[in-house]
Amino acid sequence: MNYLLTRSAIRCVVAGGKSSRWPLDDVSVARGEGLGVLVGHWRRRMSTVPEHAAAPEKEKKESGEVVVKEEKSDQPKVSSYWGISKGKIVREDGSEWPWNCFMPYDTYQSNTSIDLTKHHEPKVFLDKVAFRTVKILRIPTDIFFQRRYGCRAMMLETVAAVPGMVGGMLLHLRSLRKFQLSGGWIKALLEEAENERMHLMTMVELVQPKWYERLLVLTVQGVFFNAFFVLYMLSPKLAHRIVGYLEEEAIHSYTEYLKDINSGAIENVPAPAIAIDYWRLPKDATLKDVIIVIRADEAHHRDVNHFASDIHFQGKELREAPAPLGYH
Amino acid sequence: MNYLLTRSAIRCVVAGGKSSRWPLDDVSVARGEGLGVLVGHWRRRMSTVPEHAAAPEKEKKESGEVVVKEEKSDQPKVSSYWGISKGKIVREDGSEWPWNCFMPYDTYQSNTSIDLTKHHEPKVFLDKVAFRTVKILRIPTDIFFQRRYGCRAMMLETVAAVPGMVGGMLLHLRSLRKFQLSGGWIKALLEEAENERMHLMTMVELVQPKWYERLLVLTVQGVFFNAFFVLYMLSPKLAHRIVGYLEEEAIHSYTEYLKDINSGAIENVPAPAIAIDYWRLPKDATLKDVIIVIRADEAHHRDVNHFASDIHFQGKELREAPAPLGYH
Repeated sequence: MNYLLTRSAIRCVVAGGKSSRWPLDDVSVARGEGLGVLVGHWRRRMSTVPEHAAAPEKEKKESGEVVVKEEKSDQPKVSSYWGISKGKIVREDGSEWPWNCFMPYDTYQSNTSIDLTKHHEPKVFLDKVAFRTVKILRIPTDIFFQRRYGCRAMMLETVAAVPGMVGGMLLHLRSLRKFQLSGGWIKALLEEAENERMHLMTMVELVQPKWYERLLVLTVQGVFFNAFFVLYMLSPKLAHRIVGYLEEEAIHSYTEYLKDINSGAIENVPAPAIAIDYWRLPKDATLKDVIIVIRADEAHHRDVNHFASDIHFQGKELREAPAPLGYH
Repeated sequence: MNYLLTRSAIRCVVAGGKSSRWPLDDVSVARGEGLGVLVGHWRRRMSTVPEHAAAPEKEKKESGEVVVKEEKSDQPKVSSYWGISKGKIVREDGSEWPWNCFMPYDTYQSNTSIDLTKHHEPKVFLDKVAFRTVKILRIPTDIFFQRRYGCRAMMLETVAAVPGMVGGMLLHLRSLRKFQLSGGWIKALLEEAENERMHLMTMVELVQPKWYERLLVLTVQGVFFNAFFVLYMLSPKLAHRIVGYLEEEAIHSYTEYLKDINSGAIENVPAPAIAIDYWRLPKDATLKDVIIVIRADEAHHRDVNHFASDIHFQGKELREAPAPLGYH
């Protein structure tokens, strides 16, 4: 039986899949269309030309004009993914939703009353390692950026969005190979990564990176991604503690940013449209409002990461405590 | 100025952060509690004991009993993450929501009318490489599992949940270093990975892996994760095409699974609770209903991945076409 199955499978591979032993023989193929038509519409038919399709038939109209004959067939015309019609997405005021990377249900109003002064006092050895690592990393950062807080925010958000993704991914792989539920922590960490990325997308509307800053971001990402990946595998408690302390520093930096806006050192420009939609800010919101909500997000991330580290310090796995979901 | 800043920063690191130059001096610390109290509740206060906390005061009651004196203080008691109250989450019928890794808003009703017969005809060289790779991989898979479709589904979902996570992560990193919006594709791929993981969590309620199957899953994950990571970096179009064909094979396998259930070769047991909640199935749903909705999900993933590959074949980046979001 196994010999027959193997021989049939090999024959199938060689023949390119056209074997009568496979139930889904009736291959339905699709015809390709240019992507210019595809982009911007929610309902598209896109396919690739079938190898065995006949050349299109032509017919001569009464006027003498020769045109391509319309196919009349009982076979449903093969469609691609766009067989599922999504419809237009609109805001509450009826205007079209202009964003693809987040939907109205991803938007929220920030809790700006969150306590910004909380700090995890480093007591045990690993806490002190985490805290001093972050303080040491602050030194070259302060020297490089000085009081250029817009640039600092824009570039550091490219780093801040990495830990959540790395942690979420490693928890996902763990859940798969151990056949265990995650307690919601995969989602919580991926939510954090996406939120930090939205901070970046907002800041990039205000501060455009120069070529050497892009090069620096590229280099730092390569180093930090790999370093954090290894760190999270070796010691997730230290990894979360470091991120908690990084978030505490971020809160401090955004506070300084606000001081410069309030003093007039940095112009309080109108808020970018992406920020108004993402954080449900009023239409006349300004940079100051944006920095306040971003800072509130960082405070939340601080709490999530210190909590995650605390769970590990208790000798438990993250999945043993429900994750803080649904708030960025 | 820089010298003063650096000297101050170094002093601060050595002193462990207690420097008057840093605005957030008033360190608020928290007291630790056992995790047994934490787990299962949405509102917790958790903290670590402050180094400088005084020993608790005691007082002698009139009865002569010595008890710990209650602290009376104007200082708000420091709380941990659980400063944010989530409240209880309930189903529509009022019963408590028992899951942490997905919320009611993550559940959905599957579109089981999706076309299961669609197939992308391999025409160009890379399509043929993808198709034949998948067909070759099928050979040892069929030999190992034969008609043990429950076991097959349980183990192959550990593999199926990897590509979406790897692709989503690489797109996330790309979005960060290029300062570009993602078109929703990061979310679409992560959604696919999470959906496949939920397939696994469902199957594991029905089929428990043996020790050597767990070892095999561990080995395969190590190899496949790294291989797909490199593949996606080198050729996302080939990677997506391979996943599209893998999903086509998955549809075939689930169809065979259904045949065995219908013939009685596999018992049509009641559906696990996690599946009933996740896919909003009726209370009396069975294994057959579960396999039908899982197969519909695989058909959707097939379409998403073939579409993603098509976009690349057109010489475009994914972010140039809106991602298919909001449907698993």
